[in-house]
Amino acid sequence: MYKVNIHVLLKDDVLDPQGKTVNNALHHMGYSTVGDVRIGKFIQIASNETDEAKLNEDIKEMCQKMLTNPVIEKFDFSIEKVAS
Amino acid sequence: MYKVNIHVLLKDDVLDPQGKTVNNALHHMGYSTVGDVRIGKFIQIASNETDEAKLNEDIKEMCQKMLTNPVIEKFDFSIEKVAS
Repeated sequence: MYKVNIHVLLKDDVLDPQGKTVNNALHHMGYSTVGDVRIGKFIQIASNETDEAKLNEDIKEMCQKMLTNPVIEKFDFSIEKVAS
Repeated sequence: MYKVNIHVLLKDDVLDPQGKTVNNALHHMGYSTVGDVRIGKFIQIASNETDEAKLNEDIKEMCQKMLTNPVIEKFDFSIEKVAS
């Protein structure tokens, strides 16, 4: 059994208004050393796939087709084997 | 300069309807080996703080006070030194 951790973030050149708002709020709270804040999604998927290479391909496809918007978002993922 | 990666997920015993919906959608698309799906937030913060121990405390405080809802969410984070 595998556990897949997927990180989705807006591309670097896309403005992140939510991150900017959090940045402002943190400064107001006194955390003056806080710089750029980017907010994205963290998706955790459990999988019963036995073939890690196939899983790797499948996850890439899922990200491109559904989990992310490839026009404005970038993603990376890691696959971890867990005891089933 | 440091880069902080924060993962926020709903606690294990809290239902994740968004994850359930994505799980259903993936099954409909033919990814039958997909199991539990959990969807959370991924927050990336750049910081000019020079003291890593202080940054560690600050980030924990930010998570508890603002970035997460400690009643239903859990978080973890990692701090990474980057060239400034």
